[in-house]
Formats: sequence, C-alpha cells, structure tokens
Amino acid sequence: MTYQHKVQYYETDRMGITHHSNYIRFMEEARGEWMASMGMSYDTFEALGLSSPVLSVQCEYKHPTTYNDIIDIDIYLLKLSRLKLHVGYKMTCRGTLVCTGESSHCFLDSGGRPVSLQRSYPDVYAAYERYQSAQGEF
Amino acid sequence: MTYQHKVQYYETDRMGITHHSNYIRFMEEARGEWMASMGMSYDTFEALGLSSPVLSVQCEYKHPTTYNDIIDIDIYLLKLSRLKLHVGYKMTCRGTLVCTGESSHCFLDSGGRPVSLQRSYPDVYAAYERYQSAQGEF
Amino acid sequence: MTYQHKVQYYETDRMGITHHSNYIRFMEEARGEWMASMGMSYDTFEALGLSSPVLSVQCEYKHPTTYNDIIDIDIYLLKLSRLKLHVGYKMTCRGTLVCTGESSHCFLDSGGRPVSLQRSYPDVYAAYERYQSAQGEF
Amino acid sequence: MTYQHKVQYYETDRMGITHHSNYIRFMEEARGEWMASMGMSYDTFEALGLSSPVLSVQCEYKHPTTYNDIIDIDIYLLKLSRLKLHVGYKMTCRGTLVCTGESSHCFLDSGGRPVSLQRSYPDVYAAYERYQSAQGEF
Repeated sequence: MTYQHKVQYYETDRMGITHHSNYIRFMEEARGEWMASMGMSYDTFEALGLSSPVLSVQCEYKHPTTYNDIIDIDIYLLKLSRLKLHVGYKMTCRGTLVCTGESSHCFLDSGGRPVSLQRSYPDVYAAYERYQSAQGEF
Repeated sequence: MTYQHKVQYYETDRMGITHHSNYIRFMEEARGEWMASMGMSYDTFEALGLSSPVLSVQCEYKHPTTYNDIIDIDIYLLKLSRLKLHVGYKMTCRGTLVCTGESSHCFLDSGGRPVSLQRSYPDVYAAYERYQSAQGEF
Repeated sequence: MTYQHKVQYYETDRMGITHHSNYIRFMEEARGEWMASMGMSYDTFEALGLSSPVLSVQCEYKHPTTYNDIIDIDIYLLKLSRLKLHVGYKMTCRGTLVCTGESSHCFLDSGGRPVSLQRSYPDVYAAYERYQSAQGEF
Repeated sequence: MTYQHKVQYYETDRMGITHHSNYIRFMEEARGEWMASMGMSYDTFEALGLSSPVLSVQCEYKHPTTYNDIIDIDIYLLKLSRLKLHVGYKMTCRGTLVCTGESSHCFLDSGGRPVSLQRSYPDVYAAYERYQSAQGEF
C-alpha cells in the first residue's frame, strides 16, 4: 500500500526542513490506513477493548523534505508472528528516497495480556499473510 | 504565578521562529501548574471523574521568539463564575511582550453535566478568588 | 473553499479527543491551500522574499472530534485591507459544527517592512476580492 | 548528564499515555542541553553557519508514561568519530526504565559539506572525549 502525506508548515523547523520526529508520525498515519485496509482498523481494535502499543521505532533519514512536499510511503510487512507485527516503511518524494523506517507492535486485551491475532482474528491474520506474500522487496 | 517555557528546536518552523500554534500549548502548560497550585491539579480532576474542556482560546502575537528563548508566562484570572473560568496570559521574553492570550474553561462530571466549582469544591473556588483579588492588572 | 483534515491518532489527547491546539494547525493547513488557490502559494511568497506572519488567532470549540474524524473546513475572507487579511474558519464534522476560528495576517518584505498586496500583487488582491464577494455568510 | 522532561497534556494520546513520537523530541531536548554543556550549543553551531542534521533515530518503548510524569533522560556518547556522533539515551521515570533510544548525527558547513569536529573545533571534540571516558555503561 502507498500512503501520501503532504508536509505542513507546522511540520518544518528552523533548519527549513521537515522535523525528523514527524516521520514517526507519518509512519503512524500510513499504518492506520493500512491496518484498516487489512480488515480491522485501529478504531475497531479499540472498540473491541484491544490496543496495539508501539514496541519500537527507527528511522534513517536519507534526504530532507520541506513544506508542501508530498511524501509517498510504501508499507512492508517485515515479520508477522502470533503476537507481533514488524512493519517497514519506504518514503520517497518525487522518486527520491527520503527516509526508511521500521516499527514493531503487539496486541493487548483490556487487561494488558497479549492477544494472538492468528487465533482471535484469523481473517485479519490471513489478510496480513496475503499482503506479505504479495509485497515486493523492502 | 509566572511559568517558564524554554523554546525547543521542534517548536520552531521554517520562518525561523516559534510556530504560532505552540503558544496555545505553552498556555496549557502554565495553566496546569497554576491549577495545581490552586489546590486541585488537572490529574486530580480526572481522578475524580471530572474534566475541564477548553471552550475557547485566543492569542495575539506581538514579537517572535525562537529556539532556546525562555518565555515567562504570567497568568491572570480574568473571570470566575460558578461554571466557568476565564484565564489571561501575558508572555514576555527578556522583558519584551511576545504574546498575550486568553482561554475559557468549564467543569464537567463524568456524564458531561456542568459542575459548580463553588458548590462542589469551595476550597478550590476560594483559592481562585484569593488569586484574583491579589493579582495585578492584565 | 472547503478543505478536509482527517484527525490522526497523534492529534488526540488523554481526554480521548482532538487536542484543542491542533485546530490552529488545521486552520493553517486550510489557509495554505486557499492562498495557493488565490494565485500565490505560501511557497511563492517565501521564494519572493516575503513572509506572512500570523498576527492573531482564536478558536471557539463547539463539539469534540476524535481519531479518524474528517473535519470539513470552510474558509471565509472576513476582512481584506491594503496591509491585512482577516480570515474565518467554520469547521464541521458529519454536518455538526465543531469549531469556529479566526486569524489575521500581514505581509512583510525581507526587511520586515509591510507590503501592500493591492499595490505589489494586484492580481492576487483581485482574486481575494472576488472570493470575498462570492462567499456566503460566516 | 541527566535531563528532565515533565510530560505535558498535549503530549498524551487517546490511549492515555505519552505518544511514542514525543520521545524522539525528548531526546532532542536532552541532546541540546548536553551539546551546550560540551562547549558548543546548537545555537552557536547555526551562528557559525554549521548544521548538525539527524541521520537516524531509534526507540524501544519499555513502559508507558503519562501526563505530569517526570522523565529522567541519561545521555551516553556511544561513538565519536571525526565526522559522526552516535548518542544513546536511557529514560527512566521514578526509577523504572521507560524507553531507550539512539540517534546519530553529522556536522555540515553552509555548503552541505561534512565538517570534522576534531580538526575544526578540537576543544569541543576533546570535551566529548572526556565525557565518553567518564560515562558509565549504556
């Protein structure tokens, strides 16, 4: 899936470029749309009393972007296990690689206990598996 | 009460100055410390099942600030009524007025019904009254 | 002009709703698109060595919004003078009024001196005039 | 060096906790104070026409924090070379590890060419060396 984010003025900093912390937010934006397209939006997760906390993030900044730039964010499912999701992000702007990122996530019930996506939501798990087998190289 | 905020790099924008939206956040920071000093922190409000939504805000920008500037925020209780709080903010940096702001707030119980601070928390209400009578001119 | 903003997870707060400071940012987003549609984008302003600082903002919060809500932002030109622009914003979500806002702006050259839009960029000024006479009631 | 950040309400999200993207900002805050204590603040860097872009960041989230929590951020100089700085961050709250982070940085002149801190600013380089040899285990 490719998600687009247009850089806002309030996302730039005194160096004249998009502040590095915002790419972490762009990753969340893209991930939200992607999870919804897998059959279970983050909204639905929460309505079911589940949460999906972020365990880790990382970004490598390759090229700056600035106000009004449109960033294309491609999402990769790097690893899918019963309890965890490891996601990759390739961000480009007019064809130039600007940032690569990764994030990992788990699923928790309302009591904070790990939830197996595969057992509890097999259709959603299957959608992730199909996405993984159809995607290109990260 | 005077609260200090040191401007962070991520709060600046491409114009080289503190982005205007952040002053609304500095007002919230100052207000949080001030409400705690009145005997009832925002944390406590929430622990009691209450909330204090923002009804309105306004800012007039007088002079820009930038990274590492220390902004002194003076808080004024502009109007106190049974159901509402109207707060004023005078922000200076090295003695220069940089921004004036105002915000208004009410108090709601867990069902979203208005709560009279004066009736339910008379001590807190009295602290606000004392603050108001002791403060200078806005 | 109507601009749409989809509320992101990182724009919500512990109260479960869109943090009030973000509406100031939504106003900037909408204003940027609108100014571009008037014939002179903020990018172009800066490329010409001009800037358009925010002089004041205000918001009245009417109804909360939250993650994934789509906010429709209608822009009104409240007042146009040689040196200043006063803009109004009406924000609705699924037809419900959620926030009204206003902001005022001037135009400065690279030396910080006021620029008359009417004299220096009469076509842009005329576009604003046409917008104003065609718009509905704020 | 230990830097303290008090979590603000606008830094929390709908999950009731500090939004994960903000820890990247806390790292920048701590790094700014630390660089100033090494003899060359980020302000000075910029005044000299230099910049120090962020090359990469990463965070592992260990435990949530929320509004009013005070986060202690310990800074480690993980690797110092002629052209790069690799920094580690250990964040605790009331003694509990909440997040570990890393970031790497280079130094560029006004033309975007790499600057050797060791050659151009030997005193600053020496201060970093002393910090590194005096610090504990990351």
